[in-house]
Amino acid sequence: MPHISLPVSIPGIRSLLTAYPETGRHLSAFAHQLMRGESSLNPAERELIAAKVSQVNQCKYCTHSHSQTARHLFPDEEKKIVEEVVFKHNNQVLSEKMQALIQIALAVQQSGLAVEQAHIDKAREAGADDQTIHDTVLISAAFCMFNRYVDGLATMTPDKPEAYELIGKRLAESGYINR
Amino acid sequence: MPHISLPVSIPGIRSLLTAYPETGRHLSAFAHQLMRGESSLNPAERELIAAKVSQVNQCKYCTHSHSQTARHLFPDEEKKIVEEVVFKHNNQVLSEKMQALIQIALAVQQSGLAVEQAHIDKAREAGADDQTIHDTVLISAAFCMFNRYVDGLATMTPDKPEAYELIGKRLAESGYINR
Repeated sequence: MPHISLPVSIPGIRSLLTAYPETGRHLSAFAHQLMRGESSLNPAERELIAAKVSQVNQCKYCTHSHSQTARHLFPDEEKKIVEEVVFKHNNQVLSEKMQALIQIALAVQQSGLAVEQAHIDKAREAGADDQTIHDTVLISAAFCMFNRYVDGLATMTPDKPEAYELIGKRLAESGYINR
Repeated sequence: MPHISLPVSIPGIRSLLTAYPETGRHLSAFAHQLMRGESSLNPAERELIAAKVSQVNQCKYCTHSHSQTARHLFPDEEKKIVEEVVFKHNNQVLSEKMQALIQIALAVQQSGLAVEQAHIDKAREAGADDQTIHDTVLISAAFCMFNRYVDGLATMTPDKPEAYELIGKRLAESGYINR
């Protein structure tokens, strides 16, 4: 049961955005810009980073929601990447650039201070520019917030995979505003 | 040196908000609502939670900026609270309610899943309501993001205490928008 009173029919972060709309409005607008706005990473790549960070933070709601969103956004022949990276910890299916970015995201998940020059050098050698590195760090940092918000208040977490398929479809098609 | 190109004369998160204004605009609006908007916690109490979480995350820039902001916002006879709580780890100077809220914030700093029913019960027994618990969790979660953003990109961190006095004065007087 959630630690505070929340609408019973709405799961995860949406219950918080609904019950606390003053902060919720800004969080949705921020997430939409970060995950769908202009970036050198496409939305599927950004959702993959979000899902991976959420998995390491053991946030079930966010892990499954953003895995499903990434699956919707990757083209058919790349959809298997999500399962491999998020749940089987097999980054070999990724480009060198995305492997290096996932390493940066995982360092940020531990602490901002865990990001070393070697992480950045490896990403640059694989073709990452400033914007890419910036967006990777901010996505990881943001999901360290969203994961804690969702689980710190013990929001309702669906068990059924179909629930996350719906959430993923909606986030893939409509993004983070008015969801 | 920062991991990406940032304006050299601007320290900490402000360099990121300036260089990446699309996300920056939303982050500033969110922070202003969370730290200065309507809440059952006053701005000094919110800044104290932010400073404490930042100290545990070892984010020097945020720890000193928000400690100084809290010092500006607490009345004279309570200013010593900041030094005791943030730097001497002495929570006995706080009310029972604020002690319980700091414990919730420190649990969230570890993980959303580290918040236990006992943390919530203790806060409620000391007078915390839903809004107070919500705001405490979200402030801690948000600074887990801001701290990682600031340090994950190795932004410039001033050494001189006077720099943080100025930042604290400005945040106390004007908040998080147009800083």
